[in-house]
Amino acid sequence: VAEVPAECVIGVDLGGTKAIAGAVDASLAVHYRGRREVPTSDLEALLETLTELVEEVREAVGGEVEGVGFGIPCLIDQDRGLAASSVHLPINGVAFADVMAERVGLPVFMDNDGNLALLAEQRAGAAHGERNAVMLTLGTGIAGGIVIGGELYRGSQGAAGEFGHMIVWADGPACGPGCRSRGCLETLVSGTALSREALALASRSPASRLGQALAAGREVSGPLVTELAFDGDGDALALLEELGTWLGIGLVNVVNIFNPDVVVIGGGVIAAGELILAPARRVLAERALAFPAEHVRVEAAHFGAESGMLGAALFARERLGERVRA
Amino acid sequence: VAEVPAECVIGVDLGGTKAIAGAVDASLAVHYRGRREVPTSDLEALLETLTELVEEVREAVGGEVEGVGFGIPCLIDQDRGLAASSVHLPINGVAFADVMAERVGLPVFMDNDGNLALLAEQRAGAAHGERNAVMLTLGTGIAGGIVIGGELYRGSQGAAGEFGHMIVWADGPACGPGCRSRGCLETLVSGTALSREALALASRSPASRLGQALAAGREVSGPLVTELAFDGDGDALALLEELGTWLGIGLVNVVNIFNPDVVVIGGGVIAAGELILAPARRVLAERALAFPAEHVRVEAAHFGAESGMLGAALFARERLGERVRA
Repeated sequence: VAEVPAECVIGVDLGGTKAIAGAVDASLAVHYRGRREVPTSDLEALLETLTELVEEVREAVGGEVEGVGFGIPCLIDQDRGLAASSVHLPINGVAFADVMAERVGLPVFMDNDGNLALLAEQRAGAAHGERNAVMLTLGTGIAGGIVIGGELYRGSQGAAGEFGHMIVWADGPACGPGCRSRGCLETLVSGTALSREALALASRSPASRLGQALAAGREVSGPLVTELAFDGDGDALALLEELGTWLGIGLVNVVNIFNPDVVVIGGGVIAAGELILAPARRVLAERALAFPAEHVRVEAAHFGAESGMLGAALFARERLGERVRA
Repeated sequence: VAEVPAECVIGVDLGGTKAIAGAVDASLAVHYRGRREVPTSDLEALLETLTELVEEVREAVGGEVEGVGFGIPCLIDQDRGLAASSVHLPINGVAFADVMAERVGLPVFMDNDGNLALLAEQRAGAAHGERNAVMLTLGTGIAGGIVIGGELYRGSQGAAGEFGHMIVWADGPACGPGCRSRGCLETLVSGTALSREALALASRSPASRLGQALAAGREVSGPLVTELAFDGDGDALALLEELGTWLGIGLVNVVNIFNPDVVVIGGGVIAAGELILAPARRVLAERALAFPAEHVRVEAAHFGAESGMLGAALFARERLGERVRA
């Protein structure tokens, strides 16, 4: 008989500004990738964009798809199956998985995006097989995930792991919409923070390379900073060093609180790699309690920017398996 | 036959400056209490003091004691049975439980003091039966405990729950010996912090009631501040309000990270009760993510300053039970 390809599930990582989707088989091989900018103020437009994205991926692999997993940037009300509180998207109070299941005609499962990124890393990536792990996903904001005893810890209402809203500078910068606090980690360590600082530098130093890029009409944000830093630009390197130093403060807290085996750093910002991880590790070594700090590994996400998408697929596959066994 | 009293275990809560011990029966009734100031620089003197304390309690209940539990202010190296890293006491690298067992001739069990305080509260106190709980014990420093899914979470090497060394003000006051960081929560929220601020106020305001107490040779520390605050003194009330406000910052982080059912506040400082809990709850309501903040209870320890001692006794009893079953 001819070899039948393993059945795929679709994983979708919904971020604060874009969604990436993949058709993923049981070995975590990705057979097709799709990507969309997402509408961030209109719920109907957002749901329509996501439906189109799922359909595109499904058709690309011949329609044979068992289910869809979504990682969403949102606290999840597990008891009621609702998206409970999103800082970035207009999905508060929406029965997101049920609504999407009806639209795409497939079983749909949802969890917090940070949880699912860590699920992928713990099942098959940088935290593979570790009992206790934490992940920070640095994107528009910070998504977080916690593994305790080898399983995701979601908190009493599915809202745990919001490391982006850990206060590290009590009187620091005001946080974004949906948060009423100041000096949250994500005001200092995120793509948004990096863009803000890069734009400020470009504006006050027109002769700098960032300033020249701004004048030339380029988008002054994280990817440009990382590109210039790898090219040796001192300003860009300093911006990443500053971000990495603040990341290190966050790691001190994570390590002193969780005494984990590993902390995984993912998301788009981690494209800068050691340029932010080296200063972060230095601060961790200098300021964390020595005993847990000596033990912990701090690693870039093995799956890079795809942890969330792969984790969403893994989650859907695990949940489908539970249904079959039940 | 005559009624035989339930057999007791001895629980010892070893703090940064003193130890309290109790003979505790299976219903958590305390049949005798003992207390010692402890030597904080000489290991041999410390061990001798603790041995005397255990003997005093044992004799007071007629010698019938099954074992001893110690809560110690120290990271615990569970793999090797060592006190791994204490900020306050000279016990680093000491096989504390083994050494004490030999001295007192009874089975001895040890765990971190913060863990054991929460054990008592989760088994029978303010966190009774809750799945997910965090406790901060405000004493010389801050001891912490974490319950996940109804059981203590100790981290990968037994070093988890060090909320006192969570940075909340990146460039804040230098932390104490054994920590190389700044702006740790315990530099702002602890008996030590309260004494420091009270003494500073007394020194700069000799006409204040704190200043008069200083001039009269009284010890200007937490208990005096609490006494004056309950008596309506504005300076003392302001000091507790400031401490409670910083406690609230710590609670924001705990709630955003753990999404717990309850956070329990214990230790000597909690004698001030609502004078620190009210401002802490206000900051939590203002600055935490609304969804987990609306769910969580913030409670004073049901067992007050005895949570740690009772938890040490509970721990010894649970471990003795495991031996019998094994």
